[in-house]
Amino acid sequence: MKLYCYWRSTTSYRVRIALHLKGVVFDTVPVNLVTDEQARAEYAALNPQRAVPTLATDEGLVLTQSLAIMDYLDAIAPDPGLLPGDAPMRARMLAAALVLASDVHPVNNLRVMKRLKDMGHNQQDCTDWMLHWMAEGLTAFQALIDPDTPFCFGDRPTFADICLIPQLYNAHRWGLDMAPFTRLTDIEARCLALAPFDAARPENQPDAV
Amino acid sequence: MKLYCYWRSTTSYRVRIALHLKGVVFDTVPVNLVTDEQARAEYAALNPQRAVPTLATDEGLVLTQSLAIMDYLDAIAPDPGLLPGDAPMRARMLAAALVLASDVHPVNNLRVMKRLKDMGHNQQDCTDWMLHWMAEGLTAFQALIDPDTPFCFGDRPTFADICLIPQLYNAHRWGLDMAPFTRLTDIEARCLALAPFDAARPENQPDAV
Repeated sequence: MKLYCYWRSTTSYRVRIALHLKGVVFDTVPVNLVTDEQARAEYAALNPQRAVPTLATDEGLVLTQSLAIMDYLDAIAPDPGLLPGDAPMRARMLAAALVLASDVHPVNNLRVMKRLKDMGHNQQDCTDWMLHWMAEGLTAFQALIDPDTPFCFGDRPTFADICLIPQLYNAHRWGLDMAPFTRLTDIEARCLALAPFDAARPENQPDAV
Repeated sequence: MKLYCYWRSTTSYRVRIALHLKGVVFDTVPVNLVTDEQARAEYAALNPQRAVPTLATDEGLVLTQSLAIMDYLDAIAPDPGLLPGDAPMRARMLAAALVLASDVHPVNNLRVMKRLKDMGHNQQDCTDWMLHWMAEGLTAFQALIDPDTPFCFGDRPTFADICLIPQLYNAHRWGLDMAPFTRLTDIEARCLALAPFDAARPENQPDAV
């Protein structure tokens, strides 16, 4: 498999964690979002949204959207399961993941920041914007997960943890006050001590600068 | 079941379609986003994100996030399946749905519009903002679905159609030029001719004004 991704992209980071957790071997193909490589015709032919990540399988499938890729990986490599449990538990895990994947990340990503700058806003406005949505989303996320389990739900990482860790990477990067989120930073420390999460970290990617 | 929702909310609209497609009986509990009813303590206790929709089941489950609710409904009421097919087809359906559910709707919702206005932007700026993300997202969506099936994928509505129809409602509402999207408006006409989609339409809700 080939994963087209960018080291600092949080959606790329999610899929890297899922691949490493499942022990799926893959090659990284860096796509530089800062120099707009995702807009080139060759890449747009793979991913019409001109976004990362894209997973190209050895069978010729081309998959986009990080949560759809994670769902696919859970079907073809079910151990360990990333959405374990019955329907109500699965719904809780998915809801927590979607708070970050739908309501925080897309509002804060690079294309939105570029648009805000085109509208006359400076970097401080963009940072304030990002921190606002992160604080709101992480507060909701913290209320939705289990209060005292090793990971977000139970004793193993799930979709929720896989969405959380990249979002916390972004929160640290932009200086969010983490004092209200000790439950989340505890989970973060536990996740990052695991080899699959460590291998997926932005700074451990070939395109990290 | 009780569905806490707002007539014009596209995420509420998605869940209404899913419930009607599956023939699940539910009561609508309107939550007025314009008067900030979602921020009241009583509602926030149900949904810590203070967003709609929330589904409260007869067994006492409280479920949030529209796609997580749809996934739950697909588990407890599997006929008709909303993500039919094998893993690669399921990944394609989910990816198309997520283009709208993650990369269009959350960037355009009411709380983001309020934030833009707090930053000094007028209604025209907000409308331009919404139309920009809609055009970009619908272009990608149209490239990801099947080119010539009755619905987005095959001959029955799936997650993709359920996310598309509410997004098109919003596109019409804000005056998006639909000329590049005839494939999508063809699907829309086919969906809205079906009773479950019609029953779910914003204008057919008890809180419509």
